[in-house]
Amino acid sequence: MDQAPVLAEVVTRQLESMLSVGNYDGVKMLLAPVQPVDVAEAIGNLPRTLQALAFRLLRKDEAIEVYEYLDPAVQQSLLERLRSGEVLELVEEMSPDDRVRLFDELPAKVVRRLLAELSPAERKVTAQLLGYAPETAGRLMTTEYIDLKDFHSAAQALTIVRRRARQTETIYSLYVTDGERHLTGILSLRDLVTADPEDRLGDVMTREVVSVGTDTDQEDVARAIQRYDFLAVPVVDRERRLVGIVTVDDVIDVIEQEATRDLYAAGAVEAGDEDDYFQSNLFTVARRRVVWLSVLVVASFFTSEVIALNEQVLKEVVLLAAFIPLLAGTGGNVGAQSSTVVIRGLSTQSIASLGRIKAVVREATAGLLLGLLMMVLVVPFAWWRGESPLVGLSVGTSLLAITTLAATAGAGFPLLFDRMGLDPALMSTPFITTCTDVVGTLIYLKTAQWLLAHMPQLLQSTGISAHFWLAAFS
Amino acid sequence: MDQAPVLAEVVTRQLESMLSVGNYDGVKMLLAPVQPVDVAEAIGNLPRTLQALAFRLLRKDEAIEVYEYLDPAVQQSLLERLRSGEVLELVEEMSPDDRVRLFDELPAKVVRRLLAELSPAERKVTAQLLGYAPETAGRLMTTEYIDLKDFHSAAQALTIVRRRARQTETIYSLYVTDGERHLTGILSLRDLVTADPEDRLGDVMTREVVSVGTDTDQEDVARAIQRYDFLAVPVVDRERRLVGIVTVDDVIDVIEQEATRDLYAAGAVEAGDEDDYFQSNLFTVARRRVVWLSVLVVASFFTSEVIALNEQVLKEVVLLAAFIPLLAGTGGNVGAQSSTVVIRGLSTQSIASLGRIKAVVREATAGLLLGLLMMVLVVPFAWWRGESPLVGLSVGTSLLAITTLAATAGAGFPLLFDRMGLDPALMSTPFITTCTDVVGTLIYLKTAQWLLAHMPQLLQSTGISAHFWLAAFS
Repeated sequence: MDQAPVLAEVVTRQLESMLSVGNYDGVKMLLAPVQPVDVAEAIGNLPRTLQALAFRLLRKDEAIEVYEYLDPAVQQSLLERLRSGEVLELVEEMSPDDRVRLFDELPAKVVRRLLAELSPAERKVTAQLLGYAPETAGRLMTTEYIDLKDFHSAAQALTIVRRRARQTETIYSLYVTDGERHLTGILSLRDLVTADPEDRLGDVMTREVVSVGTDTDQEDVARAIQRYDFLAVPVVDRERRLVGIVTVDDVIDVIEQEATRDLYAAGAVEAGDEDDYFQSNLFTVARRRVVWLSVLVVASFFTSEVIALNEQVLKEVVLLAAFIPLLAGTGGNVGAQSSTVVIRGLSTQSIASLGRIKAVVREATAGLLLGLLMMVLVVPFAWWRGESPLVGLSVGTSLLAITTLAATAGAGFPLLFDRMGLDPALMSTPFITTCTDVVGTLIYLKTAQWLLAHMPQLLQSTGISAHFWLAAFS
Repeated sequence: MDQAPVLAEVVTRQLESMLSVGNYDGVKMLLAPVQPVDVAEAIGNLPRTLQALAFRLLRKDEAIEVYEYLDPAVQQSLLERLRSGEVLELVEEMSPDDRVRLFDELPAKVVRRLLAELSPAERKVTAQLLGYAPETAGRLMTTEYIDLKDFHSAAQALTIVRRRARQTETIYSLYVTDGERHLTGILSLRDLVTADPEDRLGDVMTREVVSVGTDTDQEDVARAIQRYDFLAVPVVDRERRLVGIVTVDDVIDVIEQEATRDLYAAGAVEAGDEDDYFQSNLFTVARRRVVWLSVLVVASFFTSEVIALNEQVLKEVVLLAAFIPLLAGTGGNVGAQSSTVVIRGLSTQSIASLGRIKAVVREATAGLLLGLLMMVLVVPFAWWRGESPLVGLSVGTSLLAITTLAATAGAGFPLLFDRMGLDPALMSTPFITTCTDVVGTLIYLKTAQWLLAHMPQLLQSTGISAHFWLAAFS
């Protein structure tokens, strides 16, 4: 499947050469066996001037499907190049959820005009969907589903399914509603085809329905479908009336989008509306990164301040400076690890079974344990390279304090943010890294200062320790 | 849907109290309307001694479904507590793909015994699936699908589907094979129910089939299903014989697992087989983190070395040390941003349309731009806090070099690794951060050394510059 983009490239090249010599029958034959998403990619790769030409050669039903897969930018440019009759037909026939996603990208003026020209039924549906907040079930759902009544027989129901199969998003999940459109049960097409034709749906359907509300966050919708292995989940309003369904294919895109968002947050990159980083221009890229960088730089000013205020101890033992990056870095890395596992645990809800307090205590203990393990590596090196036991001891003591603190902060801040109803991913890895720097540096220099004041003899034994470690390593 | 774990908790408590007073009919009534995955979670939360008791009260068909949702540890403990006849029935009735996932977790001795006791057909299938490499389509697929022949009429096919609906994973994707089991076409149940009953499948089916091989990586299987909005994708062997199908619900778990892996890599945490971080004990946790931390600590030794070797310039201008964390940190953050977007771009294939070289050049330019933007903030601060233009200039110059280098390395290393067929996520954020530290510190101290040697007068104007900036800021 790695070959999919390559396939699209080959199709694009063939398409372009056929279009330029006017071989339209060739184009039709070329595209007939290709999957709509691949056709969309090939058309998207064509020069703008040829896109509308290629698009017009598609069969009408195929054209709508291909259009739904096109990039928003290509969708817009096609709208401008097609005749208004063609545009209207296209927009009228799109799935309501895809139409709403298109309208989200278009200028308000164009949306108003298109809305006015839609048929009353489609206009009503579209306006309704546009009324829900972005990233909710209401925005994600389609209103094209099959609803049945509990007094229908299985045979009647199958006839209805057959009749409506072409205009609905899925026929595999079927919904039973009462006279006031309240959702009373669901059944799968599997249940229906295996039922006795005489059975009433009321006796076959499942009455315990898992559903989501129109204002349910899209991430929770995705979790529901994932947890229960559903192909679709019904969306109900406050009165439990069925208003739409969200299908598994849309949910996969949500899961991917949320994963990208978590990952970008971990890397201190602001996520855009779409995963379009490599499509956007350099200034957009810089804008999405400079805000976080500036926050982090200003946070670093505090570390500079800590070092500047303690310059006296550095003047006396310059080699102490050599281990500031090591300590800050290790604290940052331990903190990054803790925040990574906690943020991911919150996303996948795997942290719920443990509890917040226990999770933080656990991370703190892990931090202490990791600090102890790394002392074995770091203390001898610092003793030898710092040319005195004072440096070795300062590095060792502060290492332990820093890893414990970093793990606690790395676990605690995201949990605190989540508790406060904020996005835990805002407590990104670089943010925790930078905070740990300040505290870590302070602990380190203060420890050294204290040792220098109380045990100055630790500075003396330079020659011995260097010899000792050189002997041990050789 | 946030309520799902809460629901399971309530069910668990009720379940426990009913079991302890022997109210078995109550248990049956309690569990009847609950979704299998929720039953599995509730049973998993029970004390070990009650799990087998609760499990035995389930209806047989429900028990198998619930068992498939249980955690591997609970599955194992149940195997030990159930009678061998019960165990055999359970394992015999499981889906082959779920059975293989269970066998992956069991001790080899138990697997051999269970395999020997399976019916010949199920044994053959299981041994076959166990033969494929982990994380391939062969391991992920189920062998329970419906295959039809192109000479079947739609009516005949529907009869076959009805008959086999209960024992197969999905009836919504149907596969047409020839006499030698070669995959010749596919059709959906939607195609079948809307076809004329007299139509032959050969005329209704789609002959252009997207399929994957048994050795296709599970991530590529997931991409195929996601790209084409499929409910399932067929798996064929080298001779294009149909051997199984992978369904969308398994693919969602793969997508989530891969996202967790990317995120853990970004945070320098080694991912386990499962997303079980919060279930595993502290020593496992420490083991999964200490390896990366040690690598990073050893990398930090080079930074210490760079500073120690340049201690002369630090002795002359101690305040230079105050900006080492800031420069190293900023370089690390820019590098982290670049590697994050590139690694994610490789995962979601959104980088493919741009090309590798262009992506690196683009990131390098972004790094330069970001360096320039941050100089506005950093240079005045360093000038003022470092109490000399020398510090300000050294920090400014090296900032620009560091951000450009960090962005280039952050983008370049993952792309290089990917090109070499290695996992780009191995070039994790902390690794790039630590590498940038070494080079950044070197550039910084060398710049300062050069300025000190060639323009010593820059150290003089302390009073003026401090005054200048204090005036500018007040």
